[in-house]
Amino acid sequence: MSMPTEGPTAPRLKDVAELAQVSVKTVSNVVNGTTPVAEATRERVQRAIDALGYHPNLTARRLRTGRSGVIALAFPELPSPYFAELAVEVIAAARRVGITVLMDDTGGDPAAELRIASGLGDPMIDGVILSPLGLDQATLLSRSREIPLVLLGEADLGPVADRVHIDNVAGARAVTRHLIDEGYRRIAAIGWQDPSPRATAEQRLTGFRTALEGAGLTVDQALLPPVRAYFRPDGASAMRRLLKLPDRPDAVFCFNDLLALGALRAAHEAGLRVPDDIAIVGFDDVEEAEYAIPSLTTVAPDKRHIAELAVRCLMERIEKRYDGPSRLITPGFRVVVRESSTSAR
Amino acid sequence: MSMPTEGPTAPRLKDVAELAQVSVKTVSNVVNGTTPVAEATRERVQRAIDALGYHPNLTARRLRTGRSGVIALAFPELPSPYFAELAVEVIAAARRVGITVLMDDTGGDPAAELRIASGLGDPMIDGVILSPLGLDQATLLSRSREIPLVLLGEADLGPVADRVHIDNVAGARAVTRHLIDEGYRRIAAIGWQDPSPRATAEQRLTGFRTALEGAGLTVDQALLPPVRAYFRPDGASAMRRLLKLPDRPDAVFCFNDLLALGALRAAHEAGLRVPDDIAIVGFDDVEEAEYAIPSLTTVAPDKRHIAELAVRCLMERIEKRYDGPSRLITPGFRVVVRESSTSAR
Repeated sequence: MSMPTEGPTAPRLKDVAELAQVSVKTVSNVVNGTTPVAEATRERVQRAIDALGYHPNLTARRLRTGRSGVIALAFPELPSPYFAELAVEVIAAARRVGITVLMDDTGGDPAAELRIASGLGDPMIDGVILSPLGLDQATLLSRSREIPLVLLGEADLGPVADRVHIDNVAGARAVTRHLIDEGYRRIAAIGWQDPSPRATAEQRLTGFRTALEGAGLTVDQALLPPVRAYFRPDGASAMRRLLKLPDRPDAVFCFNDLLALGALRAAHEAGLRVPDDIAIVGFDDVEEAEYAIPSLTTVAPDKRHIAELAVRCLMERIEKRYDGPSRLITPGFRVVVRESSTSAR
Repeated sequence: MSMPTEGPTAPRLKDVAELAQVSVKTVSNVVNGTTPVAEATRERVQRAIDALGYHPNLTARRLRTGRSGVIALAFPELPSPYFAELAVEVIAAARRVGITVLMDDTGGDPAAELRIASGLGDPMIDGVILSPLGLDQATLLSRSREIPLVLLGEADLGPVADRVHIDNVAGARAVTRHLIDEGYRRIAAIGWQDPSPRATAEQRLTGFRTALEGAGLTVDQALLPPVRAYFRPDGASAMRRLLKLPDRPDAVFCFNDLLALGALRAAHEAGLRVPDDIAIVGFDDVEEAEYAIPSLTTVAPDKRHIAELAVRCLMERIEKRYDGPSRLITPGFRVVVRESSTSAR
């Protein structure tokens, strides 16, 4: 393992250039992201940077380029594995273009979200990727510093910033449709929130409803137990309520995988077999879904693609290669069918 | 919901003081953490800060106090729920003393760990909490900026910084001892790494070995399949290797919960019942352990306490209330017994 060093013996741009057999200018272009560099060359330079343990000093870099190469990434719920997995992809995508990511957990608090959308007042932060939960458009528009910003997720704050999201209505419709195709008819949904549904709840309920109605099925209000949040215990307690109904459901669509994993556990504790007695599906495709017993059918957003698009949009804004109107970008998703919804009915 | 605002109408220190019915000086003490404030008063001020959406500008705060109130937190593996759950506790502990946390994922890369230990060259970062993986003592001593630093976890880099860790040898010994007490005799361990074991692997293997030898059992090398990393797929593939042995184990201690959850899945796919055919236990007590089917017996570090101690040590260094020698702090743990290891043998 090569040991990075600091001080007078620290590797310099020209050491990297020598090892990568490119010009110092090319290394500088890779490090600063000022000028596009061919992918193969960029990779060779990155390997040399890694091998030598070269790292530009942020303050020096900022003095030279006006940018530090640091962006902030903020999610409302870090304990949610979906956000953790997406964060890993954003960090990897940023690293590929020489950018360091610092993360913040806002807890969905609008004041915290506003602070991060303003770059925390830290001049070293070049731009922000934010998945908002409590923030509204008026608040966002009041931010103290208009630094480049990309929003992630369902919350529609109007055309105030670029936003990358998947089509939640279509995702929910597709996985509900899968349950109907498998022969399930009395289908519940866990994830509605009353009285203040988040955008996620509204869009996934719409997709669920559309699929049922499209198949000529009616939506039974008794099969929509509201939840407070989207963690395992919320899913488990909603499932326990459903299982107490005189006419219990034969399948449940949970609005995220954590709710579904809590529901799986509650079904298990009630002595039910999944999917023979009741099918359960989720949304997010966190790694745990593949390893659950039974493994969980779910909607899989392409996290790597979402991360790449978000970083690309942000860097275009930071580097002023694009300064046009806000963009809404909608990468695709897949329904991953696993054991929890495929009985031999 | 109160909407925080910015610009000429943004709430000021004196608005917070008025609402909390305290002096401006008291609010300033809470915000800057310069002078201790009684817990009840601090809470009243914090509620007023939250209600008004007051947030001090970092640059202004730094000019005034020499500190920004921002610390960095870096883990080697953010997709690991143990680190995500610990991060949430660190963020909460920091918030209680008015500090914002920015996170970095180092991937365990020594160069990235060195950068963060030097505060990324960002003068806005007051101090760093780092869980190192690849860093060694010589590299850490070469850091370019000696900002306050607290280390988390097993890696022993010598007395160069305060460190908070749990006793991994004792934790591993206790959970292995539990398996022996339950009547298991042919006990495997998943988590050894060859040729470069991390400190975690070495300490947990020592605890495992000590428990077996203390009970007069021998350690069978065939029951120590090495793994590359500590994620679910590593646990699943090591378990598949164990299950191919002519004389397969009756219990497995996995060095973290993700390995154990992968092992559970592999046992399920092989048609084995846990714990009747084979017991499986883990280490970390991530939330998933409680919800797994069967639920997972594991070693539970007190994450909240670890986080509070780390933040307290760091703030003592930042606020220069303590500048003595490096401290080694060892909070406790519990063994949480669940379904995966308690058959009626």
